[in-house]
Amino acid sequence: MAEPREFDEKSFTQDVIDTFAKCQNLRLKQIMTEVVMSLHELVRKLDLTMEEWEFAIDFLTRTGQISDSRRQEFILLSDTLGVSMLVDAINNRAPPGTTESTVLGPFFVPGPAARNGDNIDVGEKGGAPTFVDVVINDLDGNPISDAQVDVWHSDEEGFYDVQYGPDAGFARRARFTAGADGRVYFWSSLPAKYPIPDDGPVGQMLGAVGRHPWRPAHLHFMIEAAGYKKLVTHIFVRESEYLESDAVFGVKQSLVDEFPHQPAGVAPDGTVMENPYRSMTWDFRLPRLDQLPKAA
Amino acid sequence: MAEPREFDEKSFTQDVIDTFAKCQNLRLKQIMTEVVMSLHELVRKLDLTMEEWEFAIDFLTRTGQISDSRRQEFILLSDTLGVSMLVDAINNRAPPGTTESTVLGPFFVPGPAARNGDNIDVGEKGGAPTFVDVVINDLDGNPISDAQVDVWHSDEEGFYDVQYGPDAGFARRARFTAGADGRVYFWSSLPAKYPIPDDGPVGQMLGAVGRHPWRPAHLHFMIEAAGYKKLVTHIFVRESEYLESDAVFGVKQSLVDEFPHQPAGVAPDGTVMENPYRSMTWDFRLPRLDQLPKAA
Repeated sequence: MAEPREFDEKSFTQDVIDTFAKCQNLRLKQIMTEVVMSLHELVRKLDLTMEEWEFAIDFLTRTGQISDSRRQEFILLSDTLGVSMLVDAINNRAPPGTTESTVLGPFFVPGPAARNGDNIDVGEKGGAPTFVDVVINDLDGNPISDAQVDVWHSDEEGFYDVQYGPDAGFARRARFTAGADGRVYFWSSLPAKYPIPDDGPVGQMLGAVGRHPWRPAHLHFMIEAAGYKKLVTHIFVRESEYLESDAVFGVKQSLVDEFPHQPAGVAPDGTVMENPYRSMTWDFRLPRLDQLPKAA
Repeated sequence: MAEPREFDEKSFTQDVIDTFAKCQNLRLKQIMTEVVMSLHELVRKLDLTMEEWEFAIDFLTRTGQISDSRRQEFILLSDTLGVSMLVDAINNRAPPGTTESTVLGPFFVPGPAARNGDNIDVGEKGGAPTFVDVVINDLDGNPISDAQVDVWHSDEEGFYDVQYGPDAGFARRARFTAGADGRVYFWSSLPAKYPIPDDGPVGQMLGAVGRHPWRPAHLHFMIEAAGYKKLVTHIFVRESEYLESDAVFGVKQSLVDEFPHQPAGVAPDGTVMENPYRSMTWDFRLPRLDQLPKAA
């Protein structure tokens, strides 16, 4: 039988990488090679103790175990370490004029179909009534037909519908399809700032390093249209706290809006409002796939 | 309110690191800083796609979720990427003459107390009867009194007692206390090679990169004595397959033994053996704490 390799701390990383020699999937081989190099370099740089390694094992295990179909703690961990925003940036390089992207976040699930003019805040915890009126355009400002537009946001207490347990229905969450004019409009409520779930390992990490778990108020959009680059983004509420210290680093200056106050009266869709309300209008710009920068 | 920072892909990693500025625990601050730098560099180097990021999130989540009190998939992942052996090497630098260490592995749990001469293979799946006779010495070859010696190993089918479910009792697992002569001896069975559990995410990874999940046959030891460096190691069976390709990189040449065949007759502890048996003797050498290299 073959002799065992002599263990050598210095050459060991290469010994591990050599075990990927037979990997047929070259991209996987590259990823595993870089992951091993990165992990080994991290351990060496930190001179990691056994106790720290044990804590890391336990931390990662708990992060998986607290996750379920309605909570994704590893996405939260990725978000709070800036990994999600970096992956987002790398994957969304686009021509000037494109609406900027930001993280998906852990609360997306497909919502029920809705139609222009619908009120999607069917719950009882909504904030100020808000009229949202957006248009999906190409980079020349011409409307894109048949775009699918997902929207979702928190209630005034900062919770998403999916956080109210498995029996709670959809609220402040819907899927619209824009017509030939690219326009989507609906009623909902003003989103609120909220803390990301901080009763798990990620909350423990944030507390230990002296960070708060808050996100500024925002409205999520995911927009898809055939032949165009998919857009995942939020529009943030200018008056909200934490714009400068979003726990998941999601804010971009170009994505902040006033959500202006409107007086009582007839709203743009003809609804008669007896009380003042808020509004938000946005011109989303999506590049065609053939307008994207070529991959290196 | 403060203006949001402008997002910039290049300076973003420093923006994330700056959020650890208030961390009171300086070691934790150092670890989090290096972890963020390492993760961001990995993402940039690989130009990671959204789909790859999503796969990684799901892989890590499943790795946590398959773990329980009897299975630790994150330790397996660390083991199979060579991280555990590297952490072991960094934390066990010791003077020449010290018995070499290797990984703890995922199957350690404290075993029942046993006494010299006991047969610890109380199960029905044992391999060839094996007489193990070891001594715990200091670096000068003088016995260490009162050392606590944990031993554990697989049965001839390659399974540990803890893998037979929550109701299975201890087998091939025990805790001895050496006397003033430093000697521990007992009967058990010859360990067998075995695959690490490969029905989970780690098995999926090994399969995808073209690696086998096997470990060569070995007997685990964990030895602790007041005033001496704790030793975690295995002794491997020379005739076993996979010495040169241990799935967890645990083999060191100095830790391989013949487990020599012995004829029927009177064994060293006086037991009359009607059939041939195997044996293993070892002189474990532990440094005093004051003999260890100083931390950098």
